[in-house]
Amino acid sequence: LPITSEHTLLLLDVKKKPWEQKVRLHNRWHPDIPPVADVTEGELFRVEMVDWTGGRVRDDDSADDIKFLDLTITHYLSGPLRIVDAEGVPASPGDLLAVEICNLGPLPGDEWGYTGIFERENGGGFLTDHFPSARKAIWYFEGIYAYSPQIPGVRFPGLTHPGIVGTAPSVELLNIWNERERKLIETGHESLKLCEVLHQRPLANLPTSDNCLLGKIQEGTAEWQKIANEAARTIPGRENGGNCDIKNLSRGSKVYLPVFVEGANLSTGDMHFSQGDGEVSFCGAIEMSGFLELKCEIIRGGMKEYLTPVGPTALHVNPIFEIGPVEPRFSEWLVFEGISVDESGKQHFLDASVAYKRAVLNAIEYLSRFGYSKEQVYLLLSCCPCEGRISGIVDAPNAVATLAIPTAIFDQDIKPKRLGHGPKLRRLPDVLR
Amino acid sequence: LPITSEHTLLLLDVKKKPWEQKVRLHNRWHPDIPPVADVTEGELFRVEMVDWTGGRVRDDDSADDIKFLDLTITHYLSGPLRIVDAEGVPASPGDLLAVEICNLGPLPGDEWGYTGIFERENGGGFLTDHFPSARKAIWYFEGIYAYSPQIPGVRFPGLTHPGIVGTAPSVELLNIWNERERKLIETGHESLKLCEVLHQRPLANLPTSDNCLLGKIQEGTAEWQKIANEAARTIPGRENGGNCDIKNLSRGSKVYLPVFVEGANLSTGDMHFSQGDGEVSFCGAIEMSGFLELKCEIIRGGMKEYLTPVGPTALHVNPIFEIGPVEPRFSEWLVFEGISVDESGKQHFLDASVAYKRAVLNAIEYLSRFGYSKEQVYLLLSCCPCEGRISGIVDAPNAVATLAIPTAIFDQDIKPKRLGHGPKLRRLPDVLR
Amino acid sequence: LPITSEHTLLLLDVKKKPWEQKVRLHNRWHPDIPPVADVTEGELFRVEMVDWTGGRVRDDDSADDIKFLDLTITHYLSGPLRIVDAEGVPASPGDLLAVEICNLGPLPGDEWGYTGIFERENGGGFLTDHFPSARKAIWYFEGIYAYSPQIPGVRFPGLTHPGIVGTAPSVELLNIWNERERKLIETGHESLKLCEVLHQRPLANLPTSDNCLLGKIQEGTAEWQKIANEAARTIPGRENGGNCDIKNLSRGSKVYLPVFVEGANLSTGDMHFSQGDGEVSFCGAIEMSGFLELKCEIIRGGMKEYLTPVGPTALHVNPIFEIGPVEPRFSEWLVFEGISVDESGKQHFLDASVAYKRAVLNAIEYLSRFGYSKEQVYLLLSCCPCEGRISGIVDAPNAVATLAIPTAIFDQDIKPKRLGHGPKLRRLPDVLR
Amino acid sequence: LPITSEHTLLLLDVKKKPWEQKVRLHNRWHPDIPPVADVTEGELFRVEMVDWTGGRVRDDDSADDIKFLDLTITHYLSGPLRIVDAEGVPASPGDLLAVEICNLGPLPGDEWGYTGIFERENGGGFLTDHFPSARKAIWYFEGIYAYSPQIPGVRFPGLTHPGIVGTAPSVELLNIWNERERKLIETGHESLKLCEVLHQRPLANLPTSDNCLLGKIQEGTAEWQKIANEAARTIPGRENGGNCDIKNLSRGSKVYLPVFVEGANLSTGDMHFSQGDGEVSFCGAIEMSGFLELKCEIIRGGMKEYLTPVGPTALHVNPIFEIGPVEPRFSEWLVFEGISVDESGKQHFLDASVAYKRAVLNAIEYLSRFGYSKEQVYLLLSCCPCEGRISGIVDAPNAVATLAIPTAIFDQDIKPKRLGHGPKLRRLPDVLR
Repeated sequence: LPITSEHTLLLLDVKKKPWEQKVRLHNRWHPDIPPVADVTEGELFRVEMVDWTGGRVRDDDSADDIKFLDLTITHYLSGPLRIVDAEGVPASPGDLLAVEICNLGPLPGDEWGYTGIFERENGGGFLTDHFPSARKAIWYFEGIYAYSPQIPGVRFPGLTHPGIVGTAPSVELLNIWNERERKLIETGHESLKLCEVLHQRPLANLPTSDNCLLGKIQEGTAEWQKIANEAARTIPGRENGGNCDIKNLSRGSKVYLPVFVEGANLSTGDMHFSQGDGEVSFCGAIEMSGFLELKCEIIRGGMKEYLTPVGPTALHVNPIFEIGPVEPRFSEWLVFEGISVDESGKQHFLDASVAYKRAVLNAIEYLSRFGYSKEQVYLLLSCCPCEGRISGIVDAPNAVATLAIPTAIFDQDIKPKRLGHGPKLRRLPDVLR
Repeated sequence: LPITSEHTLLLLDVKKKPWEQKVRLHNRWHPDIPPVADVTEGELFRVEMVDWTGGRVRDDDSADDIKFLDLTITHYLSGPLRIVDAEGVPASPGDLLAVEICNLGPLPGDEWGYTGIFERENGGGFLTDHFPSARKAIWYFEGIYAYSPQIPGVRFPGLTHPGIVGTAPSVELLNIWNERERKLIETGHESLKLCEVLHQRPLANLPTSDNCLLGKIQEGTAEWQKIANEAARTIPGRENGGNCDIKNLSRGSKVYLPVFVEGANLSTGDMHFSQGDGEVSFCGAIEMSGFLELKCEIIRGGMKEYLTPVGPTALHVNPIFEIGPVEPRFSEWLVFEGISVDESGKQHFLDASVAYKRAVLNAIEYLSRFGYSKEQVYLLLSCCPCEGRISGIVDAPNAVATLAIPTAIFDQDIKPKRLGHGPKLRRLPDVLR
Repeated sequence: LPITSEHTLLLLDVKKKPWEQKVRLHNRWHPDIPPVADVTEGELFRVEMVDWTGGRVRDDDSADDIKFLDLTITHYLSGPLRIVDAEGVPASPGDLLAVEICNLGPLPGDEWGYTGIFERENGGGFLTDHFPSARKAIWYFEGIYAYSPQIPGVRFPGLTHPGIVGTAPSVELLNIWNERERKLIETGHESLKLCEVLHQRPLANLPTSDNCLLGKIQEGTAEWQKIANEAARTIPGRENGGNCDIKNLSRGSKVYLPVFVEGANLSTGDMHFSQGDGEVSFCGAIEMSGFLELKCEIIRGGMKEYLTPVGPTALHVNPIFEIGPVEPRFSEWLVFEGISVDESGKQHFLDASVAYKRAVLNAIEYLSRFGYSKEQVYLLLSCCPCEGRISGIVDAPNAVATLAIPTAIFDQDIKPKRLGHGPKLRRLPDVLR
Repeated sequence: LPITSEHTLLLLDVKKKPWEQKVRLHNRWHPDIPPVADVTEGELFRVEMVDWTGGRVRDDDSADDIKFLDLTITHYLSGPLRIVDAEGVPASPGDLLAVEICNLGPLPGDEWGYTGIFERENGGGFLTDHFPSARKAIWYFEGIYAYSPQIPGVRFPGLTHPGIVGTAPSVELLNIWNERERKLIETGHESLKLCEVLHQRPLANLPTSDNCLLGKIQEGTAEWQKIANEAARTIPGRENGGNCDIKNLSRGSKVYLPVFVEGANLSTGDMHFSQGDGEVSFCGAIEMSGFLELKCEIIRGGMKEYLTPVGPTALHVNPIFEIGPVEPRFSEWLVFEGISVDESGKQHFLDASVAYKRAVLNAIEYLSRFGYSKEQVYLLLSCCPCEGRISGIVDAPNAVATLAIPTAIFDQDIKPKRLGHGPKLRRLPDVLR
């Protein structure tokens, strides 16, 4: 069936603020955020989403909006949707919800996005010790392609995907999240050596009622206050899916989500025109508003059948994803490697995060030889279709991680060659401050 | 030019032991291991290699050879080769050595391999806390395909590659390695929290003269003793390349290696018929003997031009790799996800190793629903062409890692579907004990 | 730049007839059809198009609309567009016009299409001697996927493309067309042996004022009458591009068109959601209305520089096409072969058309063993992403042509196997009569 | 199982002439050529083959060997092999023989090949009216890559395949072949208009005892004389497979061959390191000696089950092919188009051969702008991995054929661009005369 008006459940007005939308948005995970609509399995429907910040980052010439962005606002999600079968019976805890992404893209009339480096004092990103200051690049879309005036000489087709697809947690699961993350904050600084290498802060983002948006729940009511104090933040991916940032989750893919509450309460958001594996600069994808065309199927009892918990409870599971045949295929890649030795020369034990950090640093240094500033490359590696791989994780003491970059996205040959060859002109203008 | 006898530098007799080969092998990294031959840049040449254990693992029905394997013997490497230019001038420290892999494969008459789980007491692997006992699967090759009687119902084309390609370290670089790894062993157990999660032991393998093989250097001489006491073990990948285990380094790929000593002293070994990203069971690729057909080019001054150190000295660099267009392309993948919460439910901070561990565990549990034992899946994920990705590394506190498995390697449909569908018969026989 | 209203030149009202559209359409090639708008090179613009019949084929349960379709109406094209450079200087004869397809798709709210077999008496198609009666299948789109209630068990991602992209011919080129096609009709029946094998009729479609639509030119005027009598029909592809039906001309592709008149006068139409090589049933693609997002570049003097005529005049050239990296990639194909021996057993000399006819017949017979009617397969092979290849054209007397079908589009395994395996249930319902 | 000596059935001595080989070769199709060995289904075996001319074309600097090559010698085939099942029961007429290509390649020590233009007086090729004189290019192999000193600036990975895989015809089928080809020769010149466009001669090659080689049958005996007078020449592909020249039939592919005689009598030959669709210059692939590693399966009754005749008898069938996932994948193609209007400007009716001829001519003219001679391009398009497609075969009067060339095989950017860009230096040396 074509998507007629009755199938387009969640339409937005891109000129309005998130809290002014007719269909109410939310920016927290909680079982008590009420569904905004029902969807029957098998029907194709359309959901529209604002960008993760709800329009706070602008197409202008300053990175100040990135610099001062308040993370308590994020991510604005569309939904929740209550999924029912043909007989009207809702999905139940223990089911598996298969969500097929039939199509997706930017919102018509809003075909642009941005990539940012977060200020160190405002959380930072993977390389915040190397890049402590806020930066921004604007990307414009030409159909499937994106280009940025701030990163000249690069153009690539988007592997467009939603950063966030998730179901609502049950109360029990929500409590598990809040407890383990609170514990991390309380004990992390003393016990976690990785913190010395990955300088991003805070260690976790606990519930807060600041800027909390809960869909149909009226702000300021007792119910709102209770939920706001409990509801999980949307920043990390967790057992319900959420902010997984799996960059290949594009047209023709499927997500198999565990169902924790009646109706599943499916929410989506954080559309990315394109992202590199790791999304290293934090606000690293090409962030945009967008739409999804989805189809759902309920696999009754599927959690038990297909998801075995890895953890102390039956809720310690993760979604499964299916990647389809329709994506840009690059034939040639340049691959940068890192080992788990940090920038001070210190040896770490099989630490893939440290190894990946070195791989990304190696790539940034290399590409900066071709006329780019390091900030340009850092932003580029956050959002272009590069692949981050765990190549070796057993050969003590070194984990080996690699970052593979498709060479076709550049307008120059970036492969090493005998000296005296190849253009290495300064790429101007640089990224926005 | 065809590869005539003068181009086939390093031929082996597969019926002889490593130390009986006419062309002497070595199993350590050291600047003073003398080259066994010269190669001129631009010429195509052939190198043959024993498997990493030098034939100690046999095509029989017991995993005892894996269980008791002495790691001080590994890896047997062919080389070193001294690389010179057309004028006979050797590669020099500071150059970059481009090594193109024109062809590779098993040795004729020796078309089989094996995959093993290492015993926990003998080092273990990525999941040694879950799989503490030695296991083995034998793989036979039918041209480009491999199949194992111990893992029925699976067959895949090999993305064949050398696990190890490296240049000799300089004295200075060797000292850096030995120092940082010694320090890890001395202080690691108290300070490294990752050790609680990744149970593999020891934390590093320091130099030892046990089973040391140094090419043309006569065992027992003073020179041999000195080198044996200093020479780095081959187990981890390091700044010289070495055991990088980059599974896509197949036909048509190139490695750009830093040159630390005159002549570069290129060595290769550890041929893999196929490997999954991470090589999770440690002896996890399809290990085999094999040959390489290579071509070298010297990029004079290339280290300075292309490799910026990430670390305290100019030697803290890593090789670059170029992946070509000739490899099996799968159109459909099933993707398992992990977050940095460990099996006890404990929250870790952006730890990609922990996240990848959970992703691999999720995949093992899932596939074991389709008639496989968990040991079968663990071995399969070590050696089939699966991809390990760092999907998100910035959304505190959870790193998100994924493991993508090509669905076409199975003889059944492994995608989740409504219950009552699909064969889930027990896959017998099981792996070897 | 986002596509704002000033960049969306040719918008249609899908509820109106072709001749009622505010922006006037045309269905003939002639230099004197006036441009409807100007486009500057480098700007992204959007063009909308009705389907090739202008809505005469309906989403209903009868093939009568196909049966009685009047071919003098086709194809309805949008344009012509006059292409100018940044200084406003139009493209000139002798230039090459590079047209990049940045995006394309169905028109929102009109997400469906159809595939038809033409009645033998109304022209027929490639296999009209085997399938003389009109048939129809309706296709619905679920994002990138299409499925048809009349061809159950098949679903595939669309390699969406415009069937027609072309520039206006000059008077001289138009005369060449009309003359050579008239001559074919006059002498073809006696002299062309291929006519005995390919039964489609007429041999060519000469100019006619019946149903002629000429954009802004008012019907019935003297000017209209003159042009209508001369203007070339749009059915075949010719030197100006036109109805090339190159099925891979999808997102990210480029067409390099020769310019024959000032301004180039670019027209587009005949959108296909998907098509098989050859479009064998004539109305064989999934025909639909749709939009294109395009970008043009003028290569001054490019015809002389890049296009060498193959024929008696400088106008006997053909466009060049560039196919990009973004399309569905299938990993497994079943390939049917034909040789230039016709159904009567008669040997033809290196005739690729005869060989391809036999390959298509072989494929139809084969797939009809899997539960499909032959009409279902004929329609399917017209519109699914199958590849028609000329494999051998020199080994007298047999041309060898092949038809490769991606196996992944079926919900059953269609490969040959030992008997007793595999579902071969009747696929109902059948195509529409 | 590894291929041990008992599995390597047909080994050759590359230094000997075809008629001196210990395992006798043959160069005709006939049911009475006796098998040289038995093969059991399921076993992996190796077959070695001389090049199609049996070594008559040499790695030297003259095209005289091509110019005077006697076509009655070709093609030298290895086999026939009698295929039996595990119980020793041979394949029977009516069965389908599945032949899997597990591996293949050049013969060790003979890693080179050649591509030639045949002299017009000696048969010619697809474009013999444009290129009437014999030419030759030598190709050397570097592992998977081929390069030619005569066509500088081009290098590509080989999609290596056997040009010929076939089963023996029955007497009845052989008679059909001989009759229809004799009839073509007798009546073709008057009745076939395509002959005016495709100038290759003769129209067919009838049986002849000249240079006839029949395996174990002793030359000069009465039996030999009888068979030699009846046996079909190997030049065209026919119902038994034979010279199909399907260029993607590489590692991991399968051929499903009809069985016409007891034991199937499988023969193979005409190894190609690489070929373009159409093999346009006749001796157009990179011709070489080589080996195949094969596995057979007998599908009992498979002809009736899977192959429906297209023609007057049950023998008018064609093989089916399955193409696997392991081949070079190129992401970018430049596509040349042709329509069925010949070089004189004459309109032909839906003739794909004429359209393809114009497409190939267009490509030759275009690429000759980039520094190549037309002979260099003609040879290149015969052997590089280019794709020949039938894009439109229904839009009377023009068939549309396309030739797609992967851009990555050139060391320069061959896409059209604004003038003044790009190297267009003369590529020297030229091909051999």
